[in-house]
Amino acid sequence: MEGLEFKTGRAFAQRMDAEDELADYRKEFIFGDEDLIYMDGNSLGRLPRKTVERLREAVEQEWGEGLIRGWNAGWYEAPSRAGEKIAKIIGASPGQTIVADSTSVNLFKLVMAALSLQPERRRIVSDALNFPSDLYTLQGCLQMLGHPAGSQHDYQLELAPARDGISVDYPDLYSAINEDTALVSLSHVAFKSGFLYDAAAVTEKAHQAGALILWDLSHSAGAVPIELDRWGVDLAVGCTYKYLNGGPGAPAFLYVRGELQDQMTSPIWAWFGQRSPFAFDLDYQPADGVQRFLAGTPPILSLLAMEAGLDLQLEAGAERIRSKSIKLTAYLIYLADQILTPLGFTLGTPGDPAQRGSHVSLRHAEGYRISRALIEEMGVLPDFREPDNIRLGLAPLYSSFSEVWEAIDRLRRVVDEGRYRKYSSQRLAVT
Amino acid sequence: MEGLEFKTGRAFAQRMDAEDELADYRKEFIFGDEDLIYMDGNSLGRLPRKTVERLREAVEQEWGEGLIRGWNAGWYEAPSRAGEKIAKIIGASPGQTIVADSTSVNLFKLVMAALSLQPERRRIVSDALNFPSDLYTLQGCLQMLGHPAGSQHDYQLELAPARDGISVDYPDLYSAINEDTALVSLSHVAFKSGFLYDAAAVTEKAHQAGALILWDLSHSAGAVPIELDRWGVDLAVGCTYKYLNGGPGAPAFLYVRGELQDQMTSPIWAWFGQRSPFAFDLDYQPADGVQRFLAGTPPILSLLAMEAGLDLQLEAGAERIRSKSIKLTAYLIYLADQILTPLGFTLGTPGDPAQRGSHVSLRHAEGYRISRALIEEMGVLPDFREPDNIRLGLAPLYSSFSEVWEAIDRLRRVVDEGRYRKYSSQRLAVT
Repeated sequence: MEGLEFKTGRAFAQRMDAEDELADYRKEFIFGDEDLIYMDGNSLGRLPRKTVERLREAVEQEWGEGLIRGWNAGWYEAPSRAGEKIAKIIGASPGQTIVADSTSVNLFKLVMAALSLQPERRRIVSDALNFPSDLYTLQGCLQMLGHPAGSQHDYQLELAPARDGISVDYPDLYSAINEDTALVSLSHVAFKSGFLYDAAAVTEKAHQAGALILWDLSHSAGAVPIELDRWGVDLAVGCTYKYLNGGPGAPAFLYVRGELQDQMTSPIWAWFGQRSPFAFDLDYQPADGVQRFLAGTPPILSLLAMEAGLDLQLEAGAERIRSKSIKLTAYLIYLADQILTPLGFTLGTPGDPAQRGSHVSLRHAEGYRISRALIEEMGVLPDFREPDNIRLGLAPLYSSFSEVWEAIDRLRRVVDEGRYRKYSSQRLAVT
Repeated sequence: MEGLEFKTGRAFAQRMDAEDELADYRKEFIFGDEDLIYMDGNSLGRLPRKTVERLREAVEQEWGEGLIRGWNAGWYEAPSRAGEKIAKIIGASPGQTIVADSTSVNLFKLVMAALSLQPERRRIVSDALNFPSDLYTLQGCLQMLGHPAGSQHDYQLELAPARDGISVDYPDLYSAINEDTALVSLSHVAFKSGFLYDAAAVTEKAHQAGALILWDLSHSAGAVPIELDRWGVDLAVGCTYKYLNGGPGAPAFLYVRGELQDQMTSPIWAWFGQRSPFAFDLDYQPADGVQRFLAGTPPILSLLAMEAGLDLQLEAGAERIRSKSIKLTAYLIYLADQILTPLGFTLGTPGDPAQRGSHVSLRHAEGYRISRALIEEMGVLPDFREPDNIRLGLAPLYSSFSEVWEAIDRLRRVVDEGRYRKYSSQRLAVT
């Protein structure tokens, strides 16, 4: 990103928008309130226009009129079909990616399967930047396997430390990976700081130690180029409701490298992962391939709604998305540095674009109240992450440079004008 | 049901419809093709009119315009809110029922939690009528706990036999439950034959042996009165896409008896089951109550669509639903006996209404081809269950007696006129 030179005036943002190759994708999304600056596409992506139509068809025609026949008219294949679209976004050749359950349930399935592959290895390595829910799932797996003390298993979860809550130093991570490591489980982009791993390098290090690697792609899929096959990744999970615009709580995906599939079974045995579910045999036989990692009946309406949004990603292409993402985040960081630093903000995100996903955290001692003021009276939707991060997500398919300019200007006003002072720091249920 | 006297003529069906107290509920559902006889509400319930509107609002307003704010405007509470509606349908006082994941994943969570409560007990009792996917999940749990042989655990799954594939003899079941039984896991209504357990009696027997009981209510919720609290049930799961009209693959529910909740934890630890998910602490602390059995982010669109259909159940009331259900199934069995027995059909369902849910299986050596002919050219949608069951589901909220008459008449014609002969017995992906 050498050579990017920004200016603080609004006209500069407008010029960037005029030159934006992806600008037309904005029209593919619903904008109910044109004045709203939506900076939370990294938490819940906007609604694609196509999704509205697709879901109406799925409900009124497929369910309402087709009824049970829907299962033979596209529903049954939906987990694979949507999975193969996601595969193209994450650099996976066919037969390795499937849509199923939530990210948490998929993580559970793959961690349990991975640990059973090398039962003599008793260590999982992660980091302190990982999405806490992922750490909870890892802790739950270890608990079930007999940890803590007293068991014959004695598994350990080792977390590489976070530097300033922003990044992980590679030597710290690598020193935690050793010949006792069964699995390295990390988020490709950190949920809070946006720190982006060099996934190819970390995958190689894990393999050198004989460990499997699992990437959670929730904050990178649709924002950052991903090449699972080329990197030699073993396992991956991810959600679809952020940059993939799948809708609230849309079903998640999982990836299992082809060569591993026959050796691994899901801990959750159920009919959609059975070889012949409609034979109704009383004994479980896992399906061939990645299909065995399905469990129960998938939530079809949410799944079809999600699937409808994927084409936009594929059309826009990972390289153009990444190129715009870097410009957006760099521009935001530039403006924050120029305008917000004097107001007590600090950057909670790596400054180097090569180490950054598509969201930026700005930290401020009054971060929570500032975020409330932004939402309640300034028409900006960021989200807040404890203890002091105002997290601004930039979605390359629909975020504009003018919106970045406007968001920073409204942030400035909230602090300059003391608007945040009237808000309580009492947290809402969902922050 | 003494005193029910039926006649074979169509006029009798029309008279029954005229006297049907629930007849008006039919108007609450979408009927795209009025000539279609839908006898598969036990597999995928019809689309309620309210659901269409609710989902449109959820998509276009809550997601499209509200965006991330939807989580604080009703989405976050949806698993509990819908759970409490289902609680009223299954006889559970508040705080014990929650909507989450699929039936399979919920079964997995509750079985693992149950087994950890009494680790010295090494036996699960089920039956050969249970939905095979439930048996798969039980097998997977035992596999993970170290079964088969060679482990220190040595868990066993014991299946009470099925008599003629239709029912279970209580002495067979009870003799399998002993002081080594940790859990009795059964379907309240059997998926194929419609056999209905005396759940209160079986629950008592399990408790007498010191075992926990888990009921899968997938085929009974919304069709049969359920009194989980009164029966003293420990655990239950169920799907919502059959008689609850929740939509294809709609999220499932689970019930954990209040007194057990603090002693049990889900094996799948994730943020929606964490005490304070948005504090993002690195260590898992289970939420209080049944909330701890949530895992990842729920599929909101499918969940809200499902929730919209529940009110119809609550309004109609369990007693009226059961009363009509018994009349419908008894009438169908009467007509089948009069009209179809001479054509080679046999009854695959208990004749005693007290032992029967709301679907009836008719068996025939050419069952698969007959079901294909019904679907392809007779405008009747049953479903087929191996090896020879044509399963006819009667949904008290919208199935009519005239439809029953018509379905039996069309079945007669398919066989009388040899229409099934042109169909292959090659199975479709989903049967």
